[in-house]
Amino acid sequence: MPQLGLLAGRAWAALLSQLLRPPCASCTRAVGCHSQGTRDLSPQQMVVREKILDLVVSCFKRHGAKGMDTPAFELKEMLTEKYGEVSGLMYDLKDQGGELLSLRYDLTVPFARYLAMNKVKKMKRYHVGKVWRRESPTIVQGRYREFCQCDFDIAGQFDPMIPDAECLKIMCEILNGLQLGDFLIKVNDRRIVDGMFAVCGVPESKFRTICSSIDKLDKMAWKDVRHEMVSKKGLAPDVADRIGDYVQCHGGVSLVEQMFQDPRLSQNKQALEGLGDLKLLFEYLTLFGIAEKISFDLSLARGLDYYTGVIYEAVLLHTPTQAEEEPLSVGSVAAGGRYDGLVGMFDPKGHKVPCVGLSIGVERIFNIVEQRMKTFGEKVRTTETQVLVATPHKNFLQERLKLIAELWDAGIKAEMLYKNNPKLLTQLHYCESTGIPLVVIVGEQELKEGVVKIRSVASREEVAIKRENLVAEIQKRLSES
Amino acid sequence: MPQLGLLAGRAWAALLSQLLRPPCASCTRAVGCHSQGTRDLSPQQMVVREKILDLVVSCFKRHGAKGMDTPAFELKEMLTEKYGEVSGLMYDLKDQGGELLSLRYDLTVPFARYLAMNKVKKMKRYHVGKVWRRESPTIVQGRYREFCQCDFDIAGQFDPMIPDAECLKIMCEILNGLQLGDFLIKVNDRRIVDGMFAVCGVPESKFRTICSSIDKLDKMAWKDVRHEMVSKKGLAPDVADRIGDYVQCHGGVSLVEQMFQDPRLSQNKQALEGLGDLKLLFEYLTLFGIAEKISFDLSLARGLDYYTGVIYEAVLLHTPTQAEEEPLSVGSVAAGGRYDGLVGMFDPKGHKVPCVGLSIGVERIFNIVEQRMKTFGEKVRTTETQVLVATPHKNFLQERLKLIAELWDAGIKAEMLYKNNPKLLTQLHYCESTGIPLVVIVGEQELKEGVVKIRSVASREEVAIKRENLVAEIQKRLSES
Repeated sequence: MPQLGLLAGRAWAALLSQLLRPPCASCTRAVGCHSQGTRDLSPQQMVVREKILDLVVSCFKRHGAKGMDTPAFELKEMLTEKYGEVSGLMYDLKDQGGELLSLRYDLTVPFARYLAMNKVKKMKRYHVGKVWRRESPTIVQGRYREFCQCDFDIAGQFDPMIPDAECLKIMCEILNGLQLGDFLIKVNDRRIVDGMFAVCGVPESKFRTICSSIDKLDKMAWKDVRHEMVSKKGLAPDVADRIGDYVQCHGGVSLVEQMFQDPRLSQNKQALEGLGDLKLLFEYLTLFGIAEKISFDLSLARGLDYYTGVIYEAVLLHTPTQAEEEPLSVGSVAAGGRYDGLVGMFDPKGHKVPCVGLSIGVERIFNIVEQRMKTFGEKVRTTETQVLVATPHKNFLQERLKLIAELWDAGIKAEMLYKNNPKLLTQLHYCESTGIPLVVIVGEQELKEGVVKIRSVASREEVAIKRENLVAEIQKRLSES
Repeated sequence: MPQLGLLAGRAWAALLSQLLRPPCASCTRAVGCHSQGTRDLSPQQMVVREKILDLVVSCFKRHGAKGMDTPAFELKEMLTEKYGEVSGLMYDLKDQGGELLSLRYDLTVPFARYLAMNKVKKMKRYHVGKVWRRESPTIVQGRYREFCQCDFDIAGQFDPMIPDAECLKIMCEILNGLQLGDFLIKVNDRRIVDGMFAVCGVPESKFRTICSSIDKLDKMAWKDVRHEMVSKKGLAPDVADRIGDYVQCHGGVSLVEQMFQDPRLSQNKQALEGLGDLKLLFEYLTLFGIAEKISFDLSLARGLDYYTGVIYEAVLLHTPTQAEEEPLSVGSVAAGGRYDGLVGMFDPKGHKVPCVGLSIGVERIFNIVEQRMKTFGEKVRTTETQVLVATPHKNFLQERLKLIAELWDAGIKAEMLYKNNPKLLTQLHYCESTGIPLVVIVGEQELKEGVVKIRSVASREEVAIKRENLVAEIQKRLSES
């Protein structure tokens, strides 16, 4: 499986190898964070972000996905009633005349709108883009109000569980490739969740709101979730306790078999459908060689209203190798599921297009890497410049300008100092501090002899090259390094 | 200069070669455009967009720029009073508690805010991102309310005109690389514009608003601009006429010399400074070999308030090679200038950081390419899949799943149909319609013999390969093609 092969540079490997070490307390606040809960990305952060996105998008393309883009804002009416309780977290635009608009909350609903609007019945696409949520920003955990999502979805009517299994395979490939340490993917099915609610005695009108409470189990203790369900949402205490018994269950395919025998759950048609699909899913995951990464977990509910079938969520497992290490909680780093009804909500005739997909929480992943960079003072090169055009003499600006234009025109990445008469030492220091490997030096003697000098910054060796051979010589050296 | 070498694929070259042909009248409305003035990008559009962005970003990196990102929205107070008359076109977010926010109008003001906030005195960065403007969308001309900008800027105190000349060199490299046909870069200087206003008798309080009117000269006739200045903005008719004489002037470095001799303009200190810098700029542009692409044009004003020195704008020249061709107007495709005061507006002590930069109007460029694609029914591949895993027999889903996982794990781009028992013909048709070059076929006989067949879709040749050699064989074939 492609791992660091996709990520060039040893600095990056060194950086990722530190991921299992916890951050120190003093460096958990992010740099560049604004009062409005967003942040700038500095050049160093951008390098990390681009490497992560490259790996994710490569994986999506490896699975045959097409790219797509939708606008940052949608008609507000398109987004309402798609998300459930979290809809209040949408950013609305001010009414300045025209339609009422909201910033997109995820990439899934715009995708469904796109399919319905263009009457697309079948599509495998990826989408990388920003989404916005008015959540209380808890920056330490890597939650911002603006963040980047990387989604992969398969739309279309296909034989059961084949696309679903591919989504889980993709999550495994990406998390393996990023080398974030050990991980686990929790799997459940919305029909099992609903079946569980039904057999426990939850009134059907409360299914979605109780589902939202259960979704908080990864952040809140059971007793607090139970309190929310009973005191705030009016669920009978014995009903809550019956749910409590189920949500403790997690395991492999054997738990699926066990739930088929469960005296209550096995009486529910929906739950049986979900269990049947999970059984098939595990069969495919075994063929993909990833079954040991998957855990059937009855506490997994997923908060969004639109899921209708299998749901999943990947969590990093912190394996403390040293006694003094604190467990690191970063929440889920990837999640998704099946949503067979969403496209139909946008179609005037209600025509459905079944969909299944996943979203990579790249922002969380960035934050893990960034924290480590800060802790260890790790630096990455933020430019790709290969050559500095320099001079040891005054009044050589014209020669430098002619020379650098030649290099640019040949596709060579080159810089020069923006000074009429820079000192040679300043120019060489600039190469050392920014990691430029080669210097092309032109001075009085070189000009007279029709040559230029090429200097290797690392070895400090200099050789004179005929001026007309310069581009070829640099290209030769760069291809060798 | 790297041109199509950076852009892989003959389809793309074919597509770009059609750029000088005008679109037919029936296909000038963009697909996927929404009532709110935005649009979706389909997979085919995304391929074109990514190729354009790759070329642009490669050029920025060739010139040593670092990447950076800022949030989609800024504090409203950060953006106000930076743009001038167009400020009313900003999208505000609804007040849902907390700070008042607006969507960014360009990438320049957030960059200046970033420099001031982080006390950065020197930086060469590029930024690719979306910006939003509440303009009346004229979709035919390629103007949307959401569009992508690609900016390159050099911040810092340097010797005059060296970074400015580099910005113009970059614009030339990108426009040459994109092969959009012949182009011209108009250059002027804000100090010359203001000097011209002063010597023509424009009251200083009206400089910026008259500048906004002059900026419309590329879209409006002089008589309409004159009418706006006189009737709407209260300029004396004889003042307007004096401006009218100047704004007709355009030419090369000789026009700079001529303006030095102009009896009125040569009395203005500001104008003389601007002319002096332009003279130096032309000297550097000659060394870069691009002086013939540059036109000193006194009608160029640039609408935004923040420019303080040299300003420029690239326009495509439509050279009708056939008599029946209509001229194609796409407006400017790249523009920029020097803004030495903007960073200081964000700094509590007013510390200035001189800046110069450019913005590539990639959206306009996309639209030119898209129009041609629609006109000529040109298709580009929207996936990169190399192999389809297929079977001629029923009940081979398990074998296909095992096989495709092996390919994915080896980094090979592979797909399979999501059906338990697809027909072989359907599978082969899928390859032909989506451009997949290779098919791996596993059936009863192959399974018995421990082989798989590799079929070339183009030649229809099939060879049997030992199952354990499959990955190596595919990698060999892909590296040869």
